[in-house]
Formats: sequence, structure tokens, C-alpha cells
Amino acid sequence: MIVETFSVASQVDPNYLQGKNVVILDILRATTNIVYALANGCQEIIPFRTVEEALCLAGSLPKGTYLLGGERKREKIEGFDLGNSPKEYSPLIVKDKILIFTTTNGTTAINQAALAENILIASFLNISSVAKYLLSLEGNIVILCAGTGGRFSLEDSLAAGLLLNLLLKGRTDLSFDDLSLALLDLYHIYKDNIEQVLSFSENGKSLIAMGKEEDIRAAALIDTHFLVPIVREGIIKPVSC
Amino acid sequence: MIVETFSVASQVDPNYLQGKNVVILDILRATTNIVYALANGCQEIIPFRTVEEALCLAGSLPKGTYLLGGERKREKIEGFDLGNSPKEYSPLIVKDKILIFTTTNGTTAINQAALAENILIASFLNISSVAKYLLSLEGNIVILCAGTGGRFSLEDSLAAGLLLNLLLKGRTDLSFDDLSLALLDLYHIYKDNIEQVLSFSENGKSLIAMGKEEDIRAAALIDTHFLVPIVREGIIKPVSC
Repeated sequence: MIVETFSVASQVDPNYLQGKNVVILDILRATTNIVYALANGCQEIIPFRTVEEALCLAGSLPKGTYLLGGERKREKIEGFDLGNSPKEYSPLIVKDKILIFTTTNGTTAINQAALAENILIASFLNISSVAKYLLSLEGNIVILCAGTGGRFSLEDSLAAGLLLNLLLKGRTDLSFDDLSLALLDLYHIYKDNIEQVLSFSENGKSLIAMGKEEDIRAAALIDTHFLVPIVREGIIKPVSC
Repeated sequence: MIVETFSVASQVDPNYLQGKNVVILDILRATTNIVYALANGCQEIIPFRTVEEALCLAGSLPKGTYLLGGERKREKIEGFDLGNSPKEYSPLIVKDKILIFTTTNGTTAINQAALAENILIASFLNISSVAKYLLSLEGNIVILCAGTGGRFSLEDSLAAGLLLNLLLKGRTDLSFDDLSLALLDLYHIYKDNIEQVLSFSENGKSLIAMGKEEDIRAAALIDTHFLVPIVREGIIKPVSC
């Protein structure tokens, strides 16, 4: 089984992902929030690349059934119900709602993987569940880090490193590409300081400067949830694992 | 001083490099060979993206003054004088010659940096000289790994990690992006096994499969040379450092 990792999803040819098992990681903060929202009772999440697409779908749904969530430049989008902070995705707010979601990097990465056989959403919160689910599948694996603004991001890479180590524990017949090999090792340097590493990543520093330290704390928790969000026909729903 | 690293040169917007000090790394094997060729008396090197451009220039130069060198799919190009193995760039062959050079990733990376203020060519062979030269310059630094076929490569990243550590020893006012932070740390895991890491990189495995182990050994030597190849107006010449 071949395992490959890409640090910037938007730079990967969508055709290359056809038929593969693709894991999307955008730790700060899209995939973390997807896990929180589904764990808190959100009915389903529909990810879009653009604000216009999100608003278009919202216009076709009955009021009260959906929420518009996401960010541009790390801030809530004008006219949207929710931004991109975990605390906004509480049970009281998201339970039984459809979440229409668009973020700068994360939802773009999800849409980039449209041709994949399976698309799984991972974060530190549910990482062991994602590993377990992946190990139950046939076929090659691609870990697709969203990255930030077309660049490598430390937080996504660190989560990829943990996921790779979990896969390696579960199977011995894995073949890794160069980035996977590097991240397997890099994880061991940082594993005891996950929250700290997230804080000194570029994304982390920007969030701290905006007073959003608690978003980092909420994203750095490991294995607090046991669900795997799966994307099918453009809609994200959870399976338990 | 801001220091940034990119793992795949071809994915960087050339305009982003304008006015910066850019270091090109393609350890297996283009930038390694550039250092060997210039150290062995090659007069100058002219890097091209395409075979057609290389042949066009060759057609305009007097016979006997130049050599055509490079590779496609890791093999010598039909009609060329030299391939891309260090042993081919010996003094007896390259002394006083103009080298017209085209490789899959390395010369593409050099041309990607055309708008930079300074373009330096680095390899393990001359890495301390490159660091010293860089530290003498004003302005921000971009380390541009060629990568392999649009992907992260372990050997370029390892050399970038060493270069970053050398820069950090020389200056305390450096600000690193996420990939630079990761490679600073990754280098320490691998530093005692450079040749071994090169051997299990994807590029290294391919070279071994082709019987070119000695290219890896020749690329893994550290600080055997004290020159810095600099690109000016499309021509690479050495300065001593």
C-alpha cells in the first residue's frame, strides 16, 4: 500500500487523486471545526470553494434549516452566521442544522479531492479513528494537507506525521513517499508539544495576534472524538469508528 | 531578515522572488554537478529549461568551445556530450569549456528565480560557502528546493535544513517560515546519515536502480568546495568564498 503526503492541496492535480483514499487535514481550523460540528449534532456539512456558491445554496433552502459558516482572512464572512472558531460550533447552535461551509484553504482542499474513491476529514481530535478507518480500506492513501495560502503549514504537517505513525503501527506493508518519510520523523520531535508547535506556526501566530488562542487549544486536543467525517457526493456526514 | 523555504520551485510564483536572495538546491544532481563543473575549471554554465533552447545556443557557438550536458528521465539526452553524473564533469573534460546545461528539475528551478536580486547555487559540497556568502548580503532569503517532478524531495530538504542551521549560527535576527522551522529540526535527525538518507529518498532509490550509486556518494560530501556559483544574466559563474 502506497502512502503519499502533499503539503499544499491546491497544488495537486485532481486527476492524480482519482480512485485513491484521500485524507484532508486543515488543523487551523476547517477540519477541526468539521469534527466539532458533526460531533455536536450538525446534520451534514456542505463544503464550498467560494462564498457565492455557499450563498446560492443557502438561498434555495428553507430558513432555519441551515447555517452559513466559514472565514476569509481568518474572520467571519459578512452576512454569515458563524465564523471559523470551534466554540461557535456548539450543540446549542449546530444541532440538526445543515452547515454550509467555506474557508480559504480547507474547503478548497476538500473540493480538490472530488475524484477520490474515499474522502476522509481528519484533525487531531479524531486522528486515531481516521487511522483505524483508513486501515480498513483497500487502495492507496493520499494525505492532503490544506496548507496556508499555497504554502506548507506546520500544524497540518504535524497532524500528518501523527497519522502516518498510526498507519505504520497498523500495517507493515506500507511504502512512503519522501514527504511522508520526513513527517514520520518530524512528528517525534514535536509530539510532546503539540499545542506549543501550533502556537508558533504562522497560522497560530496570526490567530494569537487576533485574540483567538482558544482556537489553538481546541485544535490541539488528541483523540477526543471517535467519528470520521466522510464526503460523499459533496456532502460531509460522520461515521463512527 | 526573513528566511523562507519552498519544497517545489516550479510551484512558486516567479514574481514572489523579485528582489530576494534566492538559493537553488537540486542535490540529486543538477546543483551538485554545477559545483563540480565550475570547481573543475568549466568557464561558465548556461542553464536552460528545454532541450530545444540548449541545442539552439549550441548551434550558434564555435565547435569545441562548449559541451551540452544534462538529463531527461535521469538519462543523458540524445546527442548531448554529458549526462548528469558528477564523474562526467572532470577537469579533463570540462576545463575552459562553456557548459550548456538542461535538467528536469534543477535548471527549471534556476530559471524560475530569474527575477531574484541574487541567485546562488548550493549543494552539500559548498554549503558553508553559500551560507557565508548569504550572510554577507542584505535582504530576505528564499531557499528554493527543486523537488522532483513537482514534489517534495528528501535530499533537497535535508540540504536546506543544513543551510538553515548554518544561517542560524551566523545571525540571531532571522525569522523563519513554517517549512524552514520544520527543516531546521529535521536536519538534526538525519545529520549523521546524510548519504544513507539520500539513498532511501525516491530520487536516490531510482539512481541506485540504474546503477548510479556513486552519484549519491559524490552528492553527499559536505564542504569539499569553497566556491559559490552565482547566476547573472542567465550565466552561472563561480565566486570564491
